[in-house]
This record gives sequence, structure tokens and C-alpha cells, in this order.
Amino acid sequence: MNFTFWKNVGFWGPLLISKRIILSTRLYCLAMNLFQGNIDRFGGITVHTEKWNLSDSEFQNRLEASLSEWQVNGNRGIWFNVPLHQAGYVPILSKNGFTFHHAKPSYVMMIKWLPKNEPNLLPSYPHTYIGVAGLVVNERNQILVIQEKYHTRPHWKLPGGYADPGEEFGDTARREVLEETGIDTEFVSIVTLRHHHKHLFECSDLYVVCEMKPLSREISVCKHEISHCQWMDIETYKNHPEVSEMNQFVIQAYLDQQICRASVQVHDVLSFNRDCYQKIYCIKSTESVSGS
Amino acid sequence: MNFTFWKNVGFWGPLLISKRIILSTRLYCLAMNLFQGNIDRFGGITVHTEKWNLSDSEFQNRLEASLSEWQVNGNRGIWFNVPLHQAGYVPILSKNGFTFHHAKPSYVMMIKWLPKNEPNLLPSYPHTYIGVAGLVVNERNQILVIQEKYHTRPHWKLPGGYADPGEEFGDTARREVLEETGIDTEFVSIVTLRHHHKHLFECSDLYVVCEMKPLSREISVCKHEISHCQWMDIETYKNHPEVSEMNQFVIQAYLDQQICRASVQVHDVLSFNRDCYQKIYCIKSTESVSGS
Repeated sequence: MNFTFWKNVGFWGPLLISKRIILSTRLYCLAMNLFQGNIDRFGGITVHTEKWNLSDSEFQNRLEASLSEWQVNGNRGIWFNVPLHQAGYVPILSKNGFTFHHAKPSYVMMIKWLPKNEPNLLPSYPHTYIGVAGLVVNERNQILVIQEKYHTRPHWKLPGGYADPGEEFGDTARREVLEETGIDTEFVSIVTLRHHHKHLFECSDLYVVCEMKPLSREISVCKHEISHCQWMDIETYKNHPEVSEMNQFVIQAYLDQQICRASVQVHDVLSFNRDCYQKIYCIKSTESVSGS
Repeated sequence: MNFTFWKNVGFWGPLLISKRIILSTRLYCLAMNLFQGNIDRFGGITVHTEKWNLSDSEFQNRLEASLSEWQVNGNRGIWFNVPLHQAGYVPILSKNGFTFHHAKPSYVMMIKWLPKNEPNLLPSYPHTYIGVAGLVVNERNQILVIQEKYHTRPHWKLPGGYADPGEEFGDTARREVLEETGIDTEFVSIVTLRHHHKHLFECSDLYVVCEMKPLSREISVCKHEISHCQWMDIETYKNHPEVSEMNQFVIQAYLDQQICRASVQVHDVLSFNRDCYQKIYCIKSTESVSGS
């Protein structure tokens, strides 16, 4: 194909050609009764079954034909995204050698690794919960502490909870503190990270304590979750018999951080693909802030 | 029941009684053709279908009867753990109002929230990947850097990868650095945390860079994953055109941390249930270590 061809076809050329390839692949799949899916750069194919409305036997026949074709083509990881209302396809996929990969409320993802002489390098699914708490310190050196309504033993803890999908640490801390205590706050620094394994569903749990600056004073307790909430002197809290070893450690870490004149602050950094900014946390000296 | 009864029954009394309750519940469930499951403190029930070998219609009948019984009893979240080889139960559960909660290779967990006038407060599943990289600095102030075999654009990066389930940050960094470069290392400090959203399967991704001290010198590259590996002067790396904005930031954060004479170190702290020790990370001054 010479330069003139590209000049004539211009900017839209590659698009027209790739559109033609996609169209012909589609027609081929239709003619051969094969599943069509999205191809990734690792030779994998993802099929969304939602696009098809097949009886169980039609699904079985199309699956068999597609697997043979993909095997011949050298495709590697085969992913099937099955929505809840098509759950009837799940046992068919299981009988054809697919295993579960992950599930969200509305769908289950099943996978089959085709290469016979290559280890399965498909990425597994996350296994770590992110919980965030707010260490809210007011100008009188008191911290905001709560007691939960449902507990295994009574103890004074910091307001907090699980991060929602896509939520930044400071945003989770702010939301949870506001929901549980009615106090609005803003992020200052990360104080501690606690990594715990053997959590729910045999997952791990990362518990991030953020120092938060209070922007309001009036406590308004969430009656569903919280039985008590109050401002407590830091020294009282540190030595309180109803405070866990971990929270005693967190308070000491906060106090050490003040002496050390350093904190873990947040910055925006361009992503690898340069399509967005990401939050990155690292130690920064607080010398200039504290004016010494 | 008076004191003498407890005295006679002694230590084993409560156990005998609870065993009797469990036994009678079991017999009742058997007689009524109901599923029996583990009851949690929130009024939830978890059924492992593996314990039953039922035809589809037997499963449907037992499910209907059990759901009625649980509704009357005021049970709340109903969890069904269905192994891969019993995937035929998945469409039956879906038709009876269950949704997916999560899946691991060998099973899918489905849930139904029974209370009609109470919001579903069941915990969702993790949605955050944990990746860890090693910033390995030798005594000549050079860092260990790699180029990957498969990439979208060539760039020099730090060795690292996803954390295995139950793995601590320093252990992931050590394993990945060793696998990719052949260099053995030990954990010194966390340098940065990068929180990225919109990752694989719409999950988030936490990328932890750990400063690692090299314990060996000889590079031995993993030929499956890595195309190049070398020790590079920190200043050369920081200004290299094939280094991402994020890695430039990481190096600067490492250098600032040295000036600041503080690092994020790891400590063991007793868990809330006092049944194990957990890793907790916080800022510590390195003044005494550096001898100034």
C-alpha cells in the first residue's frame, strides 16, 4: 500500500479499515454461530452474554464452537460476564471448564484459561478492604470519640467506616465523621496504616487513620449506629481502660508526629497514561507550617 | 434453674445445653426439610449448599420453605455459598430474589436481604488492589530499575507487583524484587502511597513504594517479565525521559524523607480481639539512626 493510498484515505483511513475488520469479524461470527467478544492485548476475549438471548442448548452449542475456534486462533484467557437474569448460563459454563473469577451484585465473571503449556497469568480480584477513621482534634487538644451501638465489648473508638468505591481516604474520613457525629472536617494528614489479615471472607483489611481538622463543633449523633459521642482530652483517651491497644498506639503516633514535625500529606500527580491526576501520599516536613 | 444445677453441671453445662439446642435445631430442620446454616450476631444465616445433594426441584422446595421460616423468625441477611460443581443452584437462587455478593475461583456467594422496612446494611466485598514496589537503594546511591517485556510504552520503573492474599507490604516488595531481579532485600520504610481509581474491573488500586535495603548485588533477571534491569544513579533516574511523572515524584519524596530525617516504619500491635499481632505503619524520626 503506497503513500498515495494513505494520502487519499486521509485521517479516516485506519478507522475505515479497522471498522471493516470489525464488521467482517462480526459477520463471520454470526455466520459460524460463534460468540463475539472484546479482544484485549494479552490475547484474551471478554464475552458479555447479555448481547445474546439463547436457550440452554443453543448456548451450549455456540460455546463449544467458539471454544474450538478460540483454541485454534491461539486465544488465551476467555472471560464470560453473565448478568443475574441470565444465571442459567452459569452451570453450562461450569460444565465447560470455566471457574468463577469475581461477582458484583448484578453479574458474575467466569474465566477459562486456554493455553495448555503456559501458566495462567490472569489477574485475580482484590482481596483488601479499605477502612478509614478520622482523628479529629480540636483547638483544646480534645479528640472526637464514639461508642458503637452494636459491639462485642464496649470501647471508645474513632469515627470511621469502609471506603466507598472510588473514594479518597480524606473523603471517606470526612463522610464517616459527618454521618456518625455531625461534625464537618477536613483532611490534614495520614497518621497510621494498620494492615490486618484474616478479615471478613478471608480478606485483608487496611485501616487508615487520618488527622482531620474540625470545621464545626456541635455533635449530632447517628442514632442507628452510635450510642455515645463526645470530645475527650487526648491524655484521658490515651489512658482510658476502654480504649484498644491499637487506638492507644494511634494516639501515641499522632503525638510523636507533632514532635517529629513531619506528616503524611497528599499531592496530585499525573497518571502514567497522562489522562488524570492521582492522589499520592508521602512524608513532608511541617517545620515551616509550625513556624519553627 | 438454681445454683445447685450449675454447680452439678459445672464447666461443661453451658456447652451441653448449647449442644442440645444445636441438635434440636438440626433435627427440626431435618424434619421440616429446611436448610440449616450458621447464624451470625446480626441475625444473618449462611448456608453452604455443599452439605446437600438435592435435585433442582428439591432445592427449590427446600429454599421456599426455608425463606418462609426465616422471614417468620425475623432473620435478616441470607447468604448462600455455592461451590462451582453445584452451579445449577445459581439460577434457582437468582429466581428467588438472591443477588451475587462475591465469587472466588471455587464458589460464588449469593445474598438476599429479608427485612422489608430496613435498609440492607450487609458489607460489600473489597474493591481495592494492593500493588507494592521496592525502591532498592545501594551504598553507591544507585537504585534498582527495570523495563518490562510487555508494555504500552517503554519506561524505566521499580520492580514490584500485586500483593498475594495475607501478604505484608515488605514481604510483597521482597518477593517481587527477588523474582524480577534476583536481588534479595529487606524492608526499611514506606516512601509513598498512590491511590488510583478506575482500575481493572472498575476497582481502585493502592500502589505502595517501600524503601528496601539490598542484601545481595548480582542481578539475575526474570526472562518472562523483564527485558532490562540495572542499577542507575538516582540523579540520572530522576531526570530520565523514560521515567513517569509518578516515579519522578517517588524519587523526590525519597530524597525529601532523607532531609526530613523521618520515615514510615512498621510496628507490631495487638489486635482488638487480642488473638494476634497486626502490622501498623507510622512516621518515626530517624534522627538517632542517622546519628545526628
